[in-house]
Amino acid sequence: MSNICNKKNEKTIKIGIVGYGHLGKGIEKCLAHFPDMQLIAIFTRRDPESLSSQSRVEPFDRINEFKRDIDVLILAGSSQDIPALAPSLIADFNTVDCFDNHDKIAVYFKKMDDIAQAHNKVAIVSTGWDPGLFSIQRMLMEAMLPNANTYTFWGPGLSQGHSDIVRRVDGVKYGIQYTIPSDKMMEKIRAGQKVDYTLATAHRREVYIVLEEKVDAIKITKEIQEFPVYFAPYQTSVHIISEAEFFANHQGMPHGGRVLRQGETTDNNKATYEFSLKFDHNPEITASISLAFARAVHRLYTEGIFGAKTVLDIPLRYLSLRDHDDMLEHLI
Amino acid sequence: MSNICNKKNEKTIKIGIVGYGHLGKGIEKCLAHFPDMQLIAIFTRRDPESLSSQSRVEPFDRINEFKRDIDVLILAGSSQDIPALAPSLIADFNTVDCFDNHDKIAVYFKKMDDIAQAHNKVAIVSTGWDPGLFSIQRMLMEAMLPNANTYTFWGPGLSQGHSDIVRRVDGVKYGIQYTIPSDKMMEKIRAGQKVDYTLATAHRREVYIVLEEKVDAIKITKEIQEFPVYFAPYQTSVHIISEAEFFANHQGMPHGGRVLRQGETTDNNKATYEFSLKFDHNPEITASISLAFARAVHRLYTEGIFGAKTVLDIPLRYLSLRDHDDMLEHLI
Repeated sequence: MSNICNKKNEKTIKIGIVGYGHLGKGIEKCLAHFPDMQLIAIFTRRDPESLSSQSRVEPFDRINEFKRDIDVLILAGSSQDIPALAPSLIADFNTVDCFDNHDKIAVYFKKMDDIAQAHNKVAIVSTGWDPGLFSIQRMLMEAMLPNANTYTFWGPGLSQGHSDIVRRVDGVKYGIQYTIPSDKMMEKIRAGQKVDYTLATAHRREVYIVLEEKVDAIKITKEIQEFPVYFAPYQTSVHIISEAEFFANHQGMPHGGRVLRQGETTDNNKATYEFSLKFDHNPEITASISLAFARAVHRLYTEGIFGAKTVLDIPLRYLSLRDHDDMLEHLI
Repeated sequence: MSNICNKKNEKTIKIGIVGYGHLGKGIEKCLAHFPDMQLIAIFTRRDPESLSSQSRVEPFDRINEFKRDIDVLILAGSSQDIPALAPSLIADFNTVDCFDNHDKIAVYFKKMDDIAQAHNKVAIVSTGWDPGLFSIQRMLMEAMLPNANTYTFWGPGLSQGHSDIVRRVDGVKYGIQYTIPSDKMMEKIRAGQKVDYTLATAHRREVYIVLEEKVDAIKITKEIQEFPVYFAPYQTSVHIISEAEFFANHQGMPHGGRVLRQGETTDNNKATYEFSLKFDHNPEITASISLAFARAVHRLYTEGIFGAKTVLDIPLRYLSLRDHDDMLEHLI
């Protein structure tokens, strides 16, 4: 990678992280591979002393004291927190987030755009892999192959949301859920065959649980399988395992997914576009993508282009460490 | 696709096509799937009467009479022609091209940018699938997974350039060449194993030829296999077939390819990004992509953003027929 070097006249981008859960930790670690960036501080609502980080940790209440020290704030809170938190920060900071509640993105975007415009700040909303990288792929594929259909598949991988539901069931000591996409349906799509795609027909769910002592395994299995929205519409298998097996084999955070578009350029000339991701550590991939967009935020701000942006609103070169000549030579 | 409709207040984009080879014909056909566009004329250096098109065909010499009637001119000539042709057109027209001579793109871009800036015109250069869509993928993947390596594979598919070389060999009546990527190497890359990737180790070449009568098959085979740059560095198989088989089985223009990036988010956490394309008709895929970029050219021009652009220089939303709210709802 010796041909990519940070231009000497471009100053280091100073990063702040809000939140220190899986994503915040991922950003802190992945920053090592973004040589044009420097972590200033992590902000937390917990006791800063209680965090196991080697970085500077500050109480969230003091964040406004860092207005001048931070170029881009990455909001690593949950999607429950972000719509309340982000509008209170965008007047004073440029931000990137991974807000992934699809139904609420339009309203959130508008709110952020109004405040960012009014205060000459930049926010890139809903980065990460989906929404984010997958949104870009859906857009490209649709524009470049109009006579076709797009399908998104998630997994194989661990879903935090579904695992949380499993763990809340009475009698479950530990639990985890893997989302498995239908390989058979993907094969049919690639072959140009008609498929009945819904979230529930395109995915199945594999649940691994460790039970408390003296509980009714059949009742618990049924309760999980019948849980509305999250499990009931899907083919859901529940595997009861030992605590030892749980800690030996179910501690990772692997995930992945796929965007497929299949159709025709003109009559009978078939075409398929396919993008896939596969990774061991979900929060770190999301972190890496949010860091690339933090670079774009900083550049937009430097150029005086303010407001909220989606991943579809910015020239992609803003994501790269390469200068334009270097891109022409090595990427085009 | 009923949710994508051309906004009524956006006027139809008037398209001109320069050249009527495979690509020009592909653009003419694929336009049917771009409802916001209208073909004004095809320009040719041949006798317009000799073309089998149902569209309006005009001699290239008269193209300047159409300055006011055409929003975007798509340059469908060969990559040999474009560096000479395009600079003579960009002063009067907005253009899109599929110039694919990687070594000369930087010089070509600069020349087009200077003229386009001076005349308030827009050119998007080097669209198509590679360069073009693959350039976008290489950029995204590198920015979003910095600690990794990128590999591009071409094929399985028919290479026009290599087929041309084969057909020029004395004694070859008909000939065609397929580029076959190494599935084994791709598997190794996905598994995170070290590979010795060069163009020649990552691809092999399959040649199918019909011989003239009374020629030396062994000599011809050797001549093809030893042809420098195009064949000598590769594992090349030459198959001698009958004219009947050639016309029965080797008349399509299928192609495809793949961009793979494999590495780690942080230590030991592996990640793989993969984009692939597979299609029956190479010129039509290139045509579809160039049409999406023609839409972007028109919008840049309408917004007063002039100059030459690469595919990395423009917000992706300019490629889409959807408006911003619709994108937020359906693509993000």
